[in-house]
Amino acid sequence: MNWKDKLHEIIYEADTPAGKAFDVALIVLILFSVILVMLESVSSIDLKYHDQLLFLEWVVTVLFSIEYILRIICIERPKKYILSFYGVIDFLSTIPLYLSYIFSGSQVFLALRALRLLRVFRILKLVQFIGESSILLNALKKSRAKIAVFIYAVIILSIILGTLMYLIEGNESGFTSIPRSIYWTIVTLTTVGYGDIAPQTPLGQFIATIIMILGYGIIAVPTGIVTVAFSKEKKDSIHLNTQSCKNCSMEGHRDDALFCYHCGHKL
Amino acid sequence: MNWKDKLHEIIYEADTPAGKAFDVALIVLILFSVILVMLESVSSIDLKYHDQLLFLEWVVTVLFSIEYILRIICIERPKKYILSFYGVIDFLSTIPLYLSYIFSGSQVFLALRALRLLRVFRILKLVQFIGESSILLNALKKSRAKIAVFIYAVIILSIILGTLMYLIEGNESGFTSIPRSIYWTIVTLTTVGYGDIAPQTPLGQFIATIIMILGYGIIAVPTGIVTVAFSKEKKDSIHLNTQSCKNCSMEGHRDDALFCYHCGHKL
Amino acid sequence: MNWKDKLHEIIYEADTPAGKAFDVALIVLILFSVILVMLESVSSIDLKYHDQLLFLEWVVTVLFSIEYILRIICIERPKKYILSFYGVIDFLSTIPLYLSYIFSGSQVFLALRALRLLRVFRILKLVQFIGESSILLNALKKSRAKIAVFIYAVIILSIILGTLMYLIEGNESGFTSIPRSIYWTIVTLTTVGYGDIAPQTPLGQFIATIIMILGYGIIAVPTGIVTVAFSKEKKDSIHLNTQSCKNCSMEGHRDDALFCYHCGHKL
Amino acid sequence: MNWKDKLHEIIYEADTPAGKAFDVALIVLILFSVILVMLESVSSIDLKYHDQLLFLEWVVTVLFSIEYILRIICIERPKKYILSFYGVIDFLSTIPLYLSYIFSGSQVFLALRALRLLRVFRILKLVQFIGESSILLNALKKSRAKIAVFIYAVIILSIILGTLMYLIEGNESGFTSIPRSIYWTIVTLTTVGYGDIAPQTPLGQFIATIIMILGYGIIAVPTGIVTVAFSKEKKDSIHLNTQSCKNCSMEGHRDDALFCYHCGHKL
Repeated sequence: MNWKDKLHEIIYEADTPAGKAFDVALIVLILFSVILVMLESVSSIDLKYHDQLLFLEWVVTVLFSIEYILRIICIERPKKYILSFYGVIDFLSTIPLYLSYIFSGSQVFLALRALRLLRVFRILKLVQFIGESSILLNALKKSRAKIAVFIYAVIILSIILGTLMYLIEGNESGFTSIPRSIYWTIVTLTTVGYGDIAPQTPLGQFIATIIMILGYGIIAVPTGIVTVAFSKEKKDSIHLNTQSCKNCSMEGHRDDALFCYHCGHKL
Repeated sequence: MNWKDKLHEIIYEADTPAGKAFDVALIVLILFSVILVMLESVSSIDLKYHDQLLFLEWVVTVLFSIEYILRIICIERPKKYILSFYGVIDFLSTIPLYLSYIFSGSQVFLALRALRLLRVFRILKLVQFIGESSILLNALKKSRAKIAVFIYAVIILSIILGTLMYLIEGNESGFTSIPRSIYWTIVTLTTVGYGDIAPQTPLGQFIATIIMILGYGIIAVPTGIVTVAFSKEKKDSIHLNTQSCKNCSMEGHRDDALFCYHCGHKL
Repeated sequence: MNWKDKLHEIIYEADTPAGKAFDVALIVLILFSVILVMLESVSSIDLKYHDQLLFLEWVVTVLFSIEYILRIICIERPKKYILSFYGVIDFLSTIPLYLSYIFSGSQVFLALRALRLLRVFRILKLVQFIGESSILLNALKKSRAKIAVFIYAVIILSIILGTLMYLIEGNESGFTSIPRSIYWTIVTLTTVGYGDIAPQTPLGQFIATIIMILGYGIIAVPTGIVTVAFSKEKKDSIHLNTQSCKNCSMEGHRDDALFCYHCGHKL
Repeated sequence: MNWKDKLHEIIYEADTPAGKAFDVALIVLILFSVILVMLESVSSIDLKYHDQLLFLEWVVTVLFSIEYILRIICIERPKKYILSFYGVIDFLSTIPLYLSYIFSGSQVFLALRALRLLRVFRILKLVQFIGESSILLNALKKSRAKIAVFIYAVIILSIILGTLMYLIEGNESGFTSIPRSIYWTIVTLTTVGYGDIAPQTPLGQFIATIIMILGYGIIAVPTGIVTVAFSKEKKDSIHLNTQSCKNCSMEGHRDDALFCYHCGHKL
């Protein structure tokens, strides 16, 4: 095994102690870089510690650059990594500081680094939680179509009700355009309720009331969809640990089955 | 098949390629017309591009007019279409621009065009999603009575609690009338919480607290109703495609069972 | 059957056409009286139509008085009715207008009339919805203990977190006392979020964030409790329509039972 | 049994009448002390009744001191109690008034007394509700891993979306830093919606809309997790009190079954 393969094992896999150590170090570095960006965005902190933050920013950027180069070197088909989802994120979150010396203002794109947090999911996937999160994801995937229909209906409903509220409130009290009115409808329907826009006419308040009760009720729909999907997922995974047929090794029999459903052999 | 029947097939059905193309074109036109109305309602955009928007408005109106006339021509009983739900919506969403030359201000009713979005459901119904949305709708229909009882109880509760809050807060802090007070109660009970009206007296805040916890709790009721309805719907659709054993008439076999799980007889 | 019994049948029961007509008339009168109280509370309407509203108020009060007296006359043990829940509500919602000539300001108690709306439940109970609402109520009754534990935990949590926020925000930004701070905590935990009080310090906002995610998560608890209670209720009612034993007529056998669980007779 | 053992039985256990009486007295005292702290924090009440409140504060502090000393005396290994969770809370909630004579301002820590309310759970655990709350806790414990994955995903999502909103709104309308922007995202995602910060740019409002619908939808995930956990818990607890047939070892009999439903043998 040459050094490239070794490096690949460390960076891309997590089976060896060195691989695990690399993943932990990467998570720590990502979290640290995100906190750094957050602190820079707070103007009072940035004014006081600007130089120190910039120095740490450079440290992080250099480390990310090294990681990026190593990833390209040790993989067989670098193009595949560079054009992959995580490859693009890695590139975009490393480049801004270099660019800030060419284009002023591009430092703002440091915030793209927050996208690196998504990598945490990938690393965890290799280590732990895999069973739990896969059950969640499977259930959500299976109820995708139903959730799409639901979101679709909510959006159409919001457009119709938002337009209606625009006609009723008529430029008053923040309902200055239909898009704003639709924005308000979604704020109300999802029970967020900022209060930056609120109906003033009695009729507007009456319809707002109906929208609220509607929103309060239809929250039950996604909940119902997901709950049923979860409970089905659970049942499927439970049925796996029942007896297997001695004759044909088939699994998944009913709990009270006396004969194999596949070959008819007595269980 | 004469040209009327052909036209009917294209406009009212979606089995032929031409019919599908017409439906897709119609959805695009509806979405475009709704976006147009939205843009017009934003005063800054309307000031700048008023003439262009008006021109596009005319294009859309003429196309909708042609569609409306064709629909009447190619159907056998035009009255049935004209008085149907979608017939009325089609008419109301086409006429406003013509009317705006007779009555000033009627342009506002262009917003009625948003109702056309409902047709999207009809078109989709013919094409896709039919299975998924029918399961959702069936489940909701079956739990209709329970949901009605629930909404009824919520409204009565809101009226009683709203009246109570009016007595306690006594014209202070926005609780100026019982209807306004009921409006506030529903805003709170559904956990929307605008904050345009908020109790100021300690007793009012105490009761507001109880209303909130109540609202937080009773959201469980519609969720429970819908979830149970969904899970029943799921089970029914699974149990429908089972067979019974010819020997012992046992039911509830797995979909891929070859032998009865109870007596071992070949299915 | 003398006139007292006839009257009793009309007023207290709903089996005869006359009884049903009385119930419908009573519901209409109650709804009308509640709307009347609402309109009076809107000062702009009250200023304009004060005399007309007062006249209608007298009509309603006289009708309620007659109903109250008839109820006492035609029942065998009047005391039982007078001291019953609905008896007290009927009395309290009838008396305020009379009292307003003795004590000024007692007119405000007309709002108690909203409690009459509860009678609507009673009337409906006799006619319709009985099955549906009884399933809902049974399920809620059975999960009473769990819901009590949950509400209890929420209140304790709110007191502790509210006190904590008072210490952190320290009289700033509306957290002027511990009770107010607890009020804010409940507003946040239940995801109502008025915004009349909002944390200003970074630490306060951080803890507010935790409270929100907590509130977002623990809404799952009552939902879970009620959903499970509903689904159990459904199953119980389904088990009623299974076979009964020919020997001992026992019901409620398992779907795959071969012998009666009570007498051992072959099913 | 010497007096130490007797004292231990009264203070630490709840089986004897004296033990129960002590627990009830302690709950009353804790509730009283918490209400006292609340009243002190309301400046208008504190100004008027400062001396009376201080006196009652001393009464409570002395009683708590006595309880603390007795707890140490009557236990075999005092260290274990002192360093236990409740031991630390008892100490911290007793000491502030004494400290207030040494360090000014330490009276504020009286609010720590709210933590004493947690003891109420412990006392109740010994007496009642044990079955109900243990079912709740078991279900929550089992779904711990899934809930952790969910909260983790929500936090990452909030950081990414919050950073995005900071870039879009650009210091306007309250989005002054990334942490504040993340705070807003969580306020929106959990459907709390204070309205102290609200997006002003059209693009910001559009993304806010997506965040709201997202938050409205993903509330279904914890609900689904907990509901499934509860329903599994319910089934398990029902299956625990069943018996198996002596003849055919069949399980899953009704609680009131006298004969095996499978072979008809007497149970």
